[in-house]
Amino acid sequence: MDVWSLSKQGDHPEDAAQDGNRFLAANGYMGLRGVPEEAGADRFPAVTLAGVYDRFQDRWREPVNAPNGLFVQFFLDGLPLSLGKAEPLMHSAQLHYQNGVYHRRTEFDAVLIESERFASLAQCHLLADRYQMTFRRDGELTLYTGISTEIWDINGPHLFDFRHEQGEALLTEAVTGEKHITVAVAQAVRPDFEAQEAFETTAAGSFRVLRRAVRKGETLTVALFAAVYTSLDHPAPGEQAARLCLRMKELGFAACLAAHEDAWADVWRRSLVELTGDEEAARALHASQYHLNSIAPRHSDAMSIPARGLSGQTYKGAIFWDSEIFFFPMFAYTQPEIARVLLKYRIDTLPGARQKAASYGYRGAFYAWESQEGGQEGCTDFNVVDVFTHRPVRTYFRDKQIHISGDIAYALRSYYEITGDRSLLEEGGAKVILECARFYISRASARLDGDTVDLNDVIGPDEYHERVANSAFTNAMALHCLKSALMLRELFADRPEWFARLLKDLNYEQDWALIPPLIARIRRPRLRDGVIEQFDGYFELEDCSLDDVRARLRDPREYWGGDHGVAGPTQIIKQADVIALLALFPGDFTDREVADNWQYYEPRTEHGSSLSACMYALTACRIGKTDEAWELFLRTANIDVSGSSKQWAGEIYIGGTHPAANGGAWMIAALGFAGLRIRDGRPELHPSLPRQISRLRFPIVWRGERLTVEVTREGGRFLRG
Amino acid sequence: MDVWSLSKQGDHPEDAAQDGNRFLAANGYMGLRGVPEEAGADRFPAVTLAGVYDRFQDRWREPVNAPNGLFVQFFLDGLPLSLGKAEPLMHSAQLHYQNGVYHRRTEFDAVLIESERFASLAQCHLLADRYQMTFRRDGELTLYTGISTEIWDINGPHLFDFRHEQGEALLTEAVTGEKHITVAVAQAVRPDFEAQEAFETTAAGSFRVLRRAVRKGETLTVALFAAVYTSLDHPAPGEQAARLCLRMKELGFAACLAAHEDAWADVWRRSLVELTGDEEAARALHASQYHLNSIAPRHSDAMSIPARGLSGQTYKGAIFWDSEIFFFPMFAYTQPEIARVLLKYRIDTLPGARQKAASYGYRGAFYAWESQEGGQEGCTDFNVVDVFTHRPVRTYFRDKQIHISGDIAYALRSYYEITGDRSLLEEGGAKVILECARFYISRASARLDGDTVDLNDVIGPDEYHERVANSAFTNAMALHCLKSALMLRELFADRPEWFARLLKDLNYEQDWALIPPLIARIRRPRLRDGVIEQFDGYFELEDCSLDDVRARLRDPREYWGGDHGVAGPTQIIKQADVIALLALFPGDFTDREVADNWQYYEPRTEHGSSLSACMYALTACRIGKTDEAWELFLRTANIDVSGSSKQWAGEIYIGGTHPAANGGAWMIAALGFAGLRIRDGRPELHPSLPRQISRLRFPIVWRGERLTVEVTREGGRFLRG
Repeated sequence: MDVWSLSKQGDHPEDAAQDGNRFLAANGYMGLRGVPEEAGADRFPAVTLAGVYDRFQDRWREPVNAPNGLFVQFFLDGLPLSLGKAEPLMHSAQLHYQNGVYHRRTEFDAVLIESERFASLAQCHLLADRYQMTFRRDGELTLYTGISTEIWDINGPHLFDFRHEQGEALLTEAVTGEKHITVAVAQAVRPDFEAQEAFETTAAGSFRVLRRAVRKGETLTVALFAAVYTSLDHPAPGEQAARLCLRMKELGFAACLAAHEDAWADVWRRSLVELTGDEEAARALHASQYHLNSIAPRHSDAMSIPARGLSGQTYKGAIFWDSEIFFFPMFAYTQPEIARVLLKYRIDTLPGARQKAASYGYRGAFYAWESQEGGQEGCTDFNVVDVFTHRPVRTYFRDKQIHISGDIAYALRSYYEITGDRSLLEEGGAKVILECARFYISRASARLDGDTVDLNDVIGPDEYHERVANSAFTNAMALHCLKSALMLRELFADRPEWFARLLKDLNYEQDWALIPPLIARIRRPRLRDGVIEQFDGYFELEDCSLDDVRARLRDPREYWGGDHGVAGPTQIIKQADVIALLALFPGDFTDREVADNWQYYEPRTEHGSSLSACMYALTACRIGKTDEAWELFLRTANIDVSGSSKQWAGEIYIGGTHPAANGGAWMIAALGFAGLRIRDGRPELHPSLPRQISRLRFPIVWRGERLTVEVTREGGRFLRG
Repeated sequence: MDVWSLSKQGDHPEDAAQDGNRFLAANGYMGLRGVPEEAGADRFPAVTLAGVYDRFQDRWREPVNAPNGLFVQFFLDGLPLSLGKAEPLMHSAQLHYQNGVYHRRTEFDAVLIESERFASLAQCHLLADRYQMTFRRDGELTLYTGISTEIWDINGPHLFDFRHEQGEALLTEAVTGEKHITVAVAQAVRPDFEAQEAFETTAAGSFRVLRRAVRKGETLTVALFAAVYTSLDHPAPGEQAARLCLRMKELGFAACLAAHEDAWADVWRRSLVELTGDEEAARALHASQYHLNSIAPRHSDAMSIPARGLSGQTYKGAIFWDSEIFFFPMFAYTQPEIARVLLKYRIDTLPGARQKAASYGYRGAFYAWESQEGGQEGCTDFNVVDVFTHRPVRTYFRDKQIHISGDIAYALRSYYEITGDRSLLEEGGAKVILECARFYISRASARLDGDTVDLNDVIGPDEYHERVANSAFTNAMALHCLKSALMLRELFADRPEWFARLLKDLNYEQDWALIPPLIARIRRPRLRDGVIEQFDGYFELEDCSLDDVRARLRDPREYWGGDHGVAGPTQIIKQADVIALLALFPGDFTDREVADNWQYYEPRTEHGSSLSACMYALTACRIGKTDEAWELFLRTANIDVSGSSKQWAGEIYIGGTHPAANGGAWMIAALGFAGLRIRDGRPELHPSLPRQISRLRFPIVWRGERLTVEVTREGGRFLRG
């Protein structure tokens, strides 16, 4: 097994949606789906842009896909030699995790095609492709290459007023419907052969046509350089794009590739987890780290990563709690400057969070559940389509998933604890924590005739149970947020005036006084035989098995949650909820408590979210269930290798890559197997290696210091550098 | 048109479910469905018992149907002469509203059958029937009469361990499954002819077989006397039943009928609304008053009336808010001793209401939404069956319809205001009001950072919108309840020690102090152009037409409400909600406010509940919309004449008679058209006669004084006596 690549033999158009994700080439600015160069819309080609959103009519807002500047299709004597139009003798695709290069090889009767392409990690606006044809008979070649506008859109179209320029660089510009953002794609080619050149513009795009006679045995190569800019990057995106692709053409494919590979080498040097003992696991970990690293916003100083990365428009390209809870840790421990960029996005979007809180009649910061640019809420009131009526169903993710604000405060505090860097708190982070705490103060309900305070009508991580009271996870997150607010004063004890000023600017005096009583009064979960009740009344729900619940489905694509779903009235949960709480606050619970809760909740968990397995694995490590942890690790780490994850929620397509699981794989390895934990402000190792692993080795940065963690069956240790 | 009866020509087995309701003969103790004597289970025969409930397995608890003691079927020369087994030349049924006598006439080739029967209003355990056959040819008659156990059960069976005795009286006893209540039915017959007598017991019941030769032109008559007792009435119900039917047999059919008719004459004397000018309306009003009077619990001192009366097991035979809000007024104004019995039921079931409040973590009295014996909650967590998945759907009627406690307090206060009788408050009514107020105190939510208090997560009268905040209706009812609690002290100013004692016994000191601030702080509804917002955020819901919403249905039997229903995400409401508030608190709103709200809400109301039209009609009268009021009145009053009301909610059968609409018809006539209203402790008339009515005349009892209200086009006046 090649632990550094993913391959697939044969042409399987029916797998196009999944394979586009599994073979994704991305660089944080954009994601190029893993489809062949000649793919039409039926194979879901897309160049998904980070942070560029659009709404078409009243449909969901979603990221914009740029036209595809790496389009190639050719004919020999008028016969098309393209997948889907001619039957290949052989076809294979391969993605190299080490350098993010996608390679395809297709054999027709008349020609052998090979190409390799990448989204440059050295130059984020660049896509490059080296396309090569070896002919097996003489004939007349007609090669179309250019900018295809036949791209995948879930809730589109998003681009209008196309304008094409043709010359040494092809340039296509269009504007989005909602905000009139210009998207510009330019393409230049560098063939290693002479040909007659012409141009064509059709409804499908803008193309350069190269014609010439070819001879049997002859090999022709053409290098393609596509550049993408938008008016969010530069006031003249078209000029920029044209200039860049021409410059890269000058430089040549090999030089572009070398710069790209250098950038990847640096990423791996800083983050690679070496796993010895099991090749499948090693490969899965490489895949996870490749995918997550490939979509990190290295080009921005304030941006986050969507729940399906840059693999398409699924989940509206929005930022979820995945960002803070699931992939933040890998970045915080290996590339803290990226962790900072993720959190800076939240700091910058505080106004949106305040607006959202106000729109529901609350104060403080209620972050978007599905955050788009500016913190705008992408989550609508309707997130599921009923498979029987085909009608949208009212869901409450947007309104009730209030743990999101606490999750962000949690990450801000973690960032400080891991990096020792207080500056992020100074540059807005402290304000965010205070505003999140204020939100919980205003969201809490007091009884007139009692002492406790409730957080009613919420949704915890387990989304199958909507509108519950006193979610154990949510209340704990709120509590942590309130305590973090108080902690700020200690942390800035050396800058009392600055802190006092901050409180004053926020008009926080009354709220500050409310925090300690709220901390004392906020409802703590009920315990039964050591098991934490997930929310008020959870234990009274029907206690049945996953199989029972599954047997009640009338359609395999039915949504399980809410009052209509099969899980809603039962104790069956979607994903780690109480277990996530135990995983995130390891110091607050004993091993025995972890064991009791794991035992109770695991059989009741559908793991219907890719976020689930990682939390179960982390806690399993702690209680010595290394076999279970191992199985959950493989499930998590392999998710974008196998492509076998859930593709539908009701009638909504939810496929794509899984950054949260990718980050989860790192967490299981580093925080679970190696047992990296912070106690009393120091990192510790509590290894819990599954028997399949003989050694784990990975770099971290601890408060500015580079360390290598090494864990073997003999134990774990930190090495300098 | 005979304004005092309902007739139907022809045999229509397909209408059996509705006709059984429309032709119901009842007496408060039991309801005998309007089906022919020979009807088998396919025509839904039933003798539904008031206040006797049973659960079979895990199905819904529902009232028990007794075996049918008026069963008759006969054969001539071995040929069955029964509807459904032979084709009649002619068949008709007739129900006389004046005396509650059901008459049937059926002509076969060989025989003419006529019968008249009733559920005695003079002797509540008695059913009697005079059955007559006139033969058109000679032959051998075989007549089966007895106690049929082939009865309709929705969630049954409920009766087990059948025991039959045969002799001069047939006696059938059985016990219910859940609580082992004995149900005894006895039957005696008095034929006016000689016959050979034998007995048969089969799986279908216990029968007397009479055989004799008959001659063409001969008429034979047999009088049937059936008596029903349960062990809730008497420790030896079988003996009692046998004794009663034999005594009645002695007395004879004519004497039984005369006593029954006298009782009805008294009821009409006390309650009849004479409407002059429109026969259809007069008949509809007679029908409404007949149905409601026929099911009044005259035999009990503490009992209420189920939402579908005694017409079957629909809605679990449970008591809803219908009782206090919709049929309480007719009784309070015409037969206050019955109004008292209805409220005594609530006083007696206070322990159940306290238990329910406690089960949700609250204090005080949270009355059952669907109250069965002892105040037990009959409403389950699942009240709708999805038509697509056939799965029960979680609904929140039980948990969230908290206005029920306020409705009961409202009726208790009205009872005092109408009758001037303080004794009911002394005998537990005051305690109920205080406990309901306590429930609202404990149910309210205060913000830590604000002054207002919310009633979150409730359902108002419009059940299509579940789990809303600050329902205008609910908050107003809670407010009224709190104010009524304070009023008690003034009312009992002459008995300060008694009242102080009551508060002390209830340990009410702290709560008493909380009432005034809660009254001040409870959230008042938002207004927009004079329109009261039904609940927080209602105005932000999709504003579309009823037709739009109806067009979204994929199945005509779909449930409209909840997050999956077509109405849920829109401003379309099931029934009067804000309008009910205006109707119940006429003194709190100006005519202009009523007009603005009527205009807004009427087109947005499906009137999907039979409770809706009456509230709209009452308010329409007030603002001079007499044409609209007239149309709504006819719809309300005709509901059990036409039988055309909604029969299904999802997959649940909801047919039956409509006591709330029956009471609503009285309210529209008396409180709407005549405009009877209490102001400053005195009754007033504000007539608003539709042009179709030339005169209205009806008796009331005002604080012990008998008055006659007379309204003509010239105006209204009170006459003594």
